Amino acid sequence: MRRVAVVGAGMTPFAEHFALGIKDLLPMAFAECAGSVDKGVATADLQAAWFGAMGTPDGFPSGIFADVLGLPDLPVTRIENSCATGNDAVRNALYGIASGACDVALVIGADKVRESASKDMVWEWEAMARDMAWDYPLGLIAPAGFALHVARYLHESSAGREHLAMIAVKNHRHGVANPKARLRFEITLEQALNAPIVADPFGVYDCAPQSDGAAALILAAEDVVDRYTDRPVWIRGVGLGLDSVMHQHKRDMTSFPATVRAAARAFGMAGLTPADVDVAEVHDFFTGIELISYEDLGFADRFEAHKLLEAGTTGIGGTLPVNPSGGLKSKGHPPGATGVAQCVELFSQLRGTAANQVERARIGLAHNLGGPTAVSAVTILEGPGT
Amino acid sequence: MRRVAVVGAGMTPFAEHFALGIKDLLPMAFAECAGSVDKGVATADLQAAWFGAMGTPDGFPSGIFADVLGLPDLPVTRIENSCATGNDAVRNALYGIASGACDVALVIGADKVRESASKDMVWEWEAMARDMAWDYPLGLIAPAGFALHVARYLHESSAGREHLAMIAVKNHRHGVANPKARLRFEITLEQALNAPIVADPFGVYDCAPQSDGAAALILAAEDVVDRYTDRPVWIRGVGLGLDSVMHQHKRDMTSFPATVRAAARAFGMAGLTPADVDVAEVHDFFTGIELISYEDLGFADRFEAHKLLEAGTTGIGGTLPVNPSGGLKSKGHPPGATGVAQCVELFSQLRGTAANQVERARIGLAHNLGGPTAVSAVTILEGPGT
Repeated sequence: MRRVAVVGAGMTPFAEHFALGIKDLLPMAFAECAGSVDKGVATADLQAAWFGAMGTPDGFPSGIFADVLGLPDLPVTRIENSCATGNDAVRNALYGIASGACDVALVIGADKVRESASKDMVWEWEAMARDMAWDYPLGLIAPAGFALHVARYLHESSAGREHLAMIAVKNHRHGVANPKARLRFEITLEQALNAPIVADPFGVYDCAPQSDGAAALILAAEDVVDRYTDRPVWIRGVGLGLDSVMHQHKRDMTSFPATVRAAARAFGMAGLTPADVDVAEVHDFFTGIELISYEDLGFADRFEAHKLLEAGTTGIGGTLPVNPSGGLKSKGHPPGATGVAQCVELFSQLRGTAANQVERARIGLAHNLGGPTAVSAVTILEGPGT
Repeated sequence: MRRVAVVGAGMTPFAEHFALGIKDLLPMAFAECAGSVDKGVATADLQAAWFGAMGTPDGFPSGIFADVLGLPDLPVTRIENSCATGNDAVRNALYGIASGACDVALVIGADKVRESASKDMVWEWEAMARDMAWDYPLGLIAPAGFALHVARYLHESSAGREHLAMIAVKNHRHGVANPKARLRFEITLEQALNAPIVADPFGVYDCAPQSDGAAALILAAEDVVDRYTDRPVWIRGVGLGLDSVMHQHKRDMTSFPATVRAAARAFGMAGLTPADVDVAEVHDFFTGIELISYEDLGFADRFEAHKLLEAGTTGIGGTLPVNPSGGLKSKGHPPGATGVAQCVELFSQLRGTAANQVERARIGLAHNLGGPTAVSAVTILEGPGT
């Protein structure tokens, strides 16, 4: 397969952008992304685009994407795959380039969920991300559905709510330095543990803030990468995994098979193992997802994820920092944008320019889980070394 | 680029499936598709899937797709690109296989627009397929928006409403033999011309019926195609083209640049010209779109499309039969399914097994236009010869 690299990356702040719409956020992310390309990029170089979005209250997603970038001749495909939308857009763009169909492609993930003129995208999104026959009418929206998994995990393992709180504290601490993060303040373990309960075992600080935002990447084939940068970040592996949608069909509530499948595919393509990963952005829409994902991604043995937290392994300064960007927890979560934004963070990490720079980071991994636990996408990147 | 072939194709009837949902339609289309593979196919052979859908009232599209096929381990990507969704799903699946990421992939397009338990997908779809800022509030939903284009075309060219009626008569005649078509009855020119006006110049018979349905294809890489059939239908070219979304930004109302761009890309990839095409399925959501598309696809010179109708060129028995399936006009139009269903028809045509068989058909072309005229996808297929 022809190799594909990330040569540019940028994003908007994730926030409650009440005064901005998708038509504002897309050009903002694109401008920062294009500006990050070391040797510059012309819009005429872009041969195709993939747009990750749960939807847009503004109308036809692909067309509006091309319109607001002033590129009505750009072929744009919209990808939607619940919270794994962003990394699946990266995967499809990679296939487009690797196939030889194009040399340079743009990926933007964006969502505007906090409000809209015409409809409430948060509820639209909740409805699109589960099975409407049973789970939605039963009230199994995101906090409730994930709480069932994490409650069972805490019951079967020796982990406790304090480990969820350690993830919240870690990711809030990381987010302080990230100018794009929404919740840039530290919290204490006590604050996390004593916060009002949203859905047991999740308190407020176990939940990520639904937010608005956009993130962009420019990908280039190995044949042309030298035109854009001497420090490419190679996409070594991509993987998509699914699982049954409804909770009553889950065989084991303490693991997410979608992640296991996505990771196996991405590591297999990369020819790498979890031990090779130096830095990871892991889906922490709720703290307990990050905890369980340590195991599903192969970073920890079964029911031993909490030991990574106790050892400080996944904090900055540890041997495998997770969510140095602050994660969804601190940064916010516009579902279409999140996976792309994880790659934006890894692009900086792997080139040594991140706000919370991880030492000697060469291999980075980005991971999403959604639908509600029925889909996962994993992307593995390799930088030039720092 | 590694070559990719269609080795199986099937679809549900397009109809008002009030008693069936997406969860019924997907397995129906898949079963017919899998059953059409000459040497058989095991579900374990399927390595990835692309699901073209405007949306589903049932919830998370990719996950429900995998669930109802009993394949929760299948990586499924949902593609949405307005009325070009189906052929863009084919394009993305082709890239996946051509890249080497997988050898065998499933493509299903499906939509359930006629009603739903929870919301009205027809209006959802109209809102998703244009710009909500101006066109939608102004009432420029599909019939009104396309009517502006076709009215101008009839004003500038020497074509008249009778040519629109000739397309309606032709496609209704073709549809009679198609067991999957919804409107299987012939009409006369007089009926078409005297029908109640929907949006001038469109009468009722100039409009295609919004319908429910699903269509499926199995694609295989050249390396493994022999396992499935000795009569593959090769995908020679795919192309996606965009254009500005809002009507006030159209420079010329009498041509659809999205189609011109998509066709140029597909023909360029195929190394073919419009003169090579033996049979075509052309987007006729309104009769006037088929007329204008004859020119945009390169089948007729500027403002001379009507001459093809007068000469009988695009009817069965002519030198370039268009919409032998009956087209959207007779068959119906579930937007996610339509492009895939066009390829299902061409699969039969190019293997000599179609209901309205075109003589000596070797090269077939499928074409969609949507969003409302901001996106087009073109797929060019080559059969073994009949």
